[in-house]
Amino acid sequence: MKNTFGTSVSVTLFGESHGPEIGAVIDGLAPGLFVDESFIASQLALRRPAGRISTARQETDAFRIVSGVFEGHTTGTPLTVLIPNEDIRSGDYRRGPARPGHADLTAAVKYHGSEDYRGGGHFSGRLTAALVAAGAVIIPALRAKGVLIGTHIARCAGIDDVSFGDDPVPDLEKLNSLSFAVLDEARGIQMRNMIESAAARGDSVGGVLETAVAGLPAGVGEPWFDTVEGVLSHALFSIPAVKGISFGDGFALADMTGSTANDPLRIKDGTPVTETNHNGGVNGGITNGMPLLFRCAVKPTPSIALEQRTVDLLTGEETSLRISGRHDPAIVHRARIVVDSVTALVLCDLLALRFGTDWLSSL
Amino acid sequence: MKNTFGTSVSVTLFGESHGPEIGAVIDGLAPGLFVDESFIASQLALRRPAGRISTARQETDAFRIVSGVFEGHTTGTPLTVLIPNEDIRSGDYRRGPARPGHADLTAAVKYHGSEDYRGGGHFSGRLTAALVAAGAVIIPALRAKGVLIGTHIARCAGIDDVSFGDDPVPDLEKLNSLSFAVLDEARGIQMRNMIESAAARGDSVGGVLETAVAGLPAGVGEPWFDTVEGVLSHALFSIPAVKGISFGDGFALADMTGSTANDPLRIKDGTPVTETNHNGGVNGGITNGMPLLFRCAVKPTPSIALEQRTVDLLTGEETSLRISGRHDPAIVHRARIVVDSVTALVLCDLLALRFGTDWLSSL
Amino acid sequence: MKNTFGTSVSVTLFGESHGPEIGAVIDGLAPGLFVDESFIASQLALRRPAGRISTARQETDAFRIVSGVFEGHTTGTPLTVLIPNEDIRSGDYRRGPARPGHADLTAAVKYHGSEDYRGGGHFSGRLTAALVAAGAVIIPALRAKGVLIGTHIARCAGIDDVSFGDDPVPDLEKLNSLSFAVLDEARGIQMRNMIESAAARGDSVGGVLETAVAGLPAGVGEPWFDTVEGVLSHALFSIPAVKGISFGDGFALADMTGSTANDPLRIKDGTPVTETNHNGGVNGGITNGMPLLFRCAVKPTPSIALEQRTVDLLTGEETSLRISGRHDPAIVHRARIVVDSVTALVLCDLLALRFGTDWLSSL
Amino acid sequence: MKNTFGTSVSVTLFGESHGPEIGAVIDGLAPGLFVDESFIASQLALRRPAGRISTARQETDAFRIVSGVFEGHTTGTPLTVLIPNEDIRSGDYRRGPARPGHADLTAAVKYHGSEDYRGGGHFSGRLTAALVAAGAVIIPALRAKGVLIGTHIARCAGIDDVSFGDDPVPDLEKLNSLSFAVLDEARGIQMRNMIESAAARGDSVGGVLETAVAGLPAGVGEPWFDTVEGVLSHALFSIPAVKGISFGDGFALADMTGSTANDPLRIKDGTPVTETNHNGGVNGGITNGMPLLFRCAVKPTPSIALEQRTVDLLTGEETSLRISGRHDPAIVHRARIVVDSVTALVLCDLLALRFGTDWLSSL
Repeated sequence: MKNTFGTSVSVTLFGESHGPEIGAVIDGLAPGLFVDESFIASQLALRRPAGRISTARQETDAFRIVSGVFEGHTTGTPLTVLIPNEDIRSGDYRRGPARPGHADLTAAVKYHGSEDYRGGGHFSGRLTAALVAAGAVIIPALRAKGVLIGTHIARCAGIDDVSFGDDPVPDLEKLNSLSFAVLDEARGIQMRNMIESAAARGDSVGGVLETAVAGLPAGVGEPWFDTVEGVLSHALFSIPAVKGISFGDGFALADMTGSTANDPLRIKDGTPVTETNHNGGVNGGITNGMPLLFRCAVKPTPSIALEQRTVDLLTGEETSLRISGRHDPAIVHRARIVVDSVTALVLCDLLALRFGTDWLSSL
Repeated sequence: MKNTFGTSVSVTLFGESHGPEIGAVIDGLAPGLFVDESFIASQLALRRPAGRISTARQETDAFRIVSGVFEGHTTGTPLTVLIPNEDIRSGDYRRGPARPGHADLTAAVKYHGSEDYRGGGHFSGRLTAALVAAGAVIIPALRAKGVLIGTHIARCAGIDDVSFGDDPVPDLEKLNSLSFAVLDEARGIQMRNMIESAAARGDSVGGVLETAVAGLPAGVGEPWFDTVEGVLSHALFSIPAVKGISFGDGFALADMTGSTANDPLRIKDGTPVTETNHNGGVNGGITNGMPLLFRCAVKPTPSIALEQRTVDLLTGEETSLRISGRHDPAIVHRARIVVDSVTALVLCDLLALRFGTDWLSSL
Repeated sequence: MKNTFGTSVSVTLFGESHGPEIGAVIDGLAPGLFVDESFIASQLALRRPAGRISTARQETDAFRIVSGVFEGHTTGTPLTVLIPNEDIRSGDYRRGPARPGHADLTAAVKYHGSEDYRGGGHFSGRLTAALVAAGAVIIPALRAKGVLIGTHIARCAGIDDVSFGDDPVPDLEKLNSLSFAVLDEARGIQMRNMIESAAARGDSVGGVLETAVAGLPAGVGEPWFDTVEGVLSHALFSIPAVKGISFGDGFALADMTGSTANDPLRIKDGTPVTETNHNGGVNGGITNGMPLLFRCAVKPTPSIALEQRTVDLLTGEETSLRISGRHDPAIVHRARIVVDSVTALVLCDLLALRFGTDWLSSL
Repeated sequence: MKNTFGTSVSVTLFGESHGPEIGAVIDGLAPGLFVDESFIASQLALRRPAGRISTARQETDAFRIVSGVFEGHTTGTPLTVLIPNEDIRSGDYRRGPARPGHADLTAAVKYHGSEDYRGGGHFSGRLTAALVAAGAVIIPALRAKGVLIGTHIARCAGIDDVSFGDDPVPDLEKLNSLSFAVLDEARGIQMRNMIESAAARGDSVGGVLETAVAGLPAGVGEPWFDTVEGVLSHALFSIPAVKGISFGDGFALADMTGSTANDPLRIKDGTPVTETNHNGGVNGGITNGMPLLFRCAVKPTPSIALEQRTVDLLTGEETSLRISGRHDPAIVHRARIVVDSVTALVLCDLLALRFGTDWLSSL
């Protein structure tokens, strides 16, 4: 289904970086959910570039909801959010040298040269604004059902944040109000310094995002193919620059023994729980009631000011490129709210499949 | 779609560890593909437990194809392969203590106690035999179109194999004939020693599988949601014990700068290629014509002989468990052929969507 | 998805008329449903040819359930039913003249001559046995939730049956035990005489099946695309020989005025109901709580003994054909149980999407 | 997927009758197709109400394409068309009596009273404008590949049009320029008189639309579930007021004998063709190269001026209703272009699945 994802609740994404509007259609939402436009705006602000560690392109993200909301609540029919593109300087872009690490070459091959190449066109990270707006409709409804989602910058430019606590809820409450989402403020300052330093060199850095979801019911997900891990990663790999996804202790599990990696079970308040959470809240593709934990590897932003060797897509000849436009020396701090939003969309779908279309608005 | 995966070419998986038969239906295959039953048998043999580093359960995997093949070739209609379960000792299993790290608890919650719990039931790695059989129909057809798939044990019990060469084709040719798939035989011996040592302790080890696909056309995959990374990981996370997936340099990209991570482009034989392949052959979700490279983190087998604390699913009480049945001290060497097979199924689907249903059998 | 249909509950169909086994995988069923093998057998018997008005091919339909059932109840994982083909006389068939009205020509074009042409191969009505077996798992569970499905031969060879009563429940109770499903026995005898008469002439006849579903909750279905009419017809057109589907008064509505076709509303037992049911229980694609009513036009069986002009698929030359094998002078009385079964599968899916995966087994 | 339909090429529909904008996202279109905005406008004009036989609501349908088109051609990424709603008189509507024959009641049940009830909200025929705009992008591209689609009013208010000729191409060429699409002008005048007469009585009439598609390649469609009949009807039943769909001779086939209904085959220009076309160009769910023929039964418009008995959705009490707003005394002449458009969307998807994503723009 390409630009549509989801089964019972789906999102369809459209638009180009330099087209008039981008947007998303969210279908299958439970009716009667309160749509908080100020919360949508605040989520969009968390994604928006800010300060010296982001691109200078400024967007106000003046979104409009043109369907699916009536008298302030979801109708149950498709909710469409449109975000006009502003501050477009198409003169910054022309078909020419493919930017290394970007989709310029693959888009040209796939679409035989018909793609809108301006600013990455349909491949632009700009489109994640529509995902954030879509997620912002769902996040408060999930919260009302006890499901909390949050992501921190677990690592950036080689600097680690501290880990989530065993009960991630206090961390999640704190993270959601931060524009640079780290659990340890001092490490966040170090990270920002590293980002600024990379920017000064005309270079960029990457990082790792770690997400926790608390309050997810046990029994969600499927044993084959539609595992929680599989469905989430399917959607999360759409976020530009994400090149790896792992659950629980992830790649570190590969070095453990079974006696360490297995999470022992015990009874707490009458319910089986695990003593550790190396498996990240999922066994056999299905949630076990513990916090869902996963990590996304975010590569350094490919747009850098340094000169790069490349190929000109017009002439087919080798050339070199120095990208002069606006760009981000790091994307990891902005991608974090996109991860939260995509996670909300995917979980909303899995929960609706499991418990029915009205579950999210039920009392 | 749960136990069905794929759009133009799909696979449906069914069966339980201790039921009479497991199997798979592969739908949407191009007509006229030669079905080589001896190749299917040899692929199944690569997955089968063998020697001291695997479970003692013995299966001959005497598969039967009951539909979709006529006069030795695919018909274009659903191909169904059935594999009888043999050497079943259900007496080894009873509903009781949930095995930590397994899906016993999550299955009981999801299916309210109606699940077939014997030997993991539908969650058993046994079902991957059907995936291997399905993949074995496709792998030779992909090879005939120039697409080669291979996986090596990049790391096991803390020991690294060497890396794929810049041109992975010679490595891929070599790997496909190995039962313990490493590029450096000496390191393979070290790994096997570590596995035997873990087995002797009643414990288990994990590892990392690295896959290369050569010869994949550029322009396959979609920018949003149905990215090559997203679709592959969706399917690959179904392989039991896989807890992380990354493309190209994966999590190591998070520590690089853009000037290192970006793959410079140049012209080779009239076509743009990248000089390095940090991005693993995919940009913006779409293949760029370079080898596709990805890694799967495989956790240590959860079935271990050591005593573990757990909960009894019948009584709801805390207990301890010492698993006495047959089990694998490592699964990574057996999972490798499953990764190849799932990769073949997914790529076959993406190629059929791109180039039409007959592409795989076209000349 | 071709041979797989359904979203939350799906069915995958496989097999060929003269292959070793046909079958179906039903995925997404609620766990804990009792599986009544004798009921499955009795439903299969209703589909099986019988007497002078059917083909002489005899099948015992000795089905086997090889997955998804444990201790007599559904597990919630894929249920696979296999039905061996018996009494196969492949000598009756050879690649040669395309049978007019059959799929011989279209199969040869689509599959480039790789199709299993024996007895219609994958296109054979034989595969509907697997649909009937699949439906027979669901029908009793729907009945336990108050949802009754039944189909009568509303018209055959120009003879009309009487209509369903305003409350179709007594008719549905009666129909389910009949092998030739008419509401008025005398008209059924006339129909059977017409069928025998056509058989004697080497010809065949068609008819119209009318289905009623009582007890379906209001609010099921979607306004666009996944309308109840759209989803049902998508599946029902798979039944061989069905060439038209209509809801409520169907094509007769085209000749009515709005003042007649509109169903007035009133309150009954505190709930809005319609006084008439010209719309067949669906408005705007969504059930309104009234009985669901629809009709399927079944064309006369294309296999007839009379000589027909056609083309030889081997030589590409014009020829004539006199079909000497076993065939049905009418299919309408056998198709009826297939319609019930497909309806059960589709409604089960729509209900699971609406109310969650466990609804069907909930108390 | 509810408001999204299609596999390789899909359409997502959104909006409400009285919201700010309605629209559609068409995904998966081949890149490089010329987008003729004046043709889109002319197709929208054919759907728009006109004269005494339509509602007095006037829309200019000033559509905007906000994504997926660059330099006048499709990019291959999602094409989004937005159509502002104009001439909205919400004062004409309030939550109150359910309009018989409409979705007012079923929407209230399904969405628990959260639906936008103004003018039918999301259920409004108004949304078909977006389908027409979407279809208008595809119709010229299909025509360039030799595929012609056209629909005439085969029957209205009891008056029959003449039938398509054996070669429908001249008829199709003629139909596409007509605003009241009949093959016999005199009968069209009779129909229009009947519609005006119904309008004068405060009543409405229905009809039957017949569609022909010429030039469709043989071998498109699937044997089970994704039959051409099944996929087309799935989509077509979304068109408001369509209550029956049949292929070829449809319900008349039920009264034929096999010797009449079977289409004899012969060779023409080296290719097998049928002498008659009772099966409407489809056998076994797959196109046979003959013109595709199907009929849609369109019920009379439910909005009528005559008093009707109904139930008030606010009070839950019985009441009577006289609809005073603007409404159509017939919809059949406007629905015709919607049928063409939906047919184009569905066929485009089936062709892309069969021949690959680039087929439509290939030379």
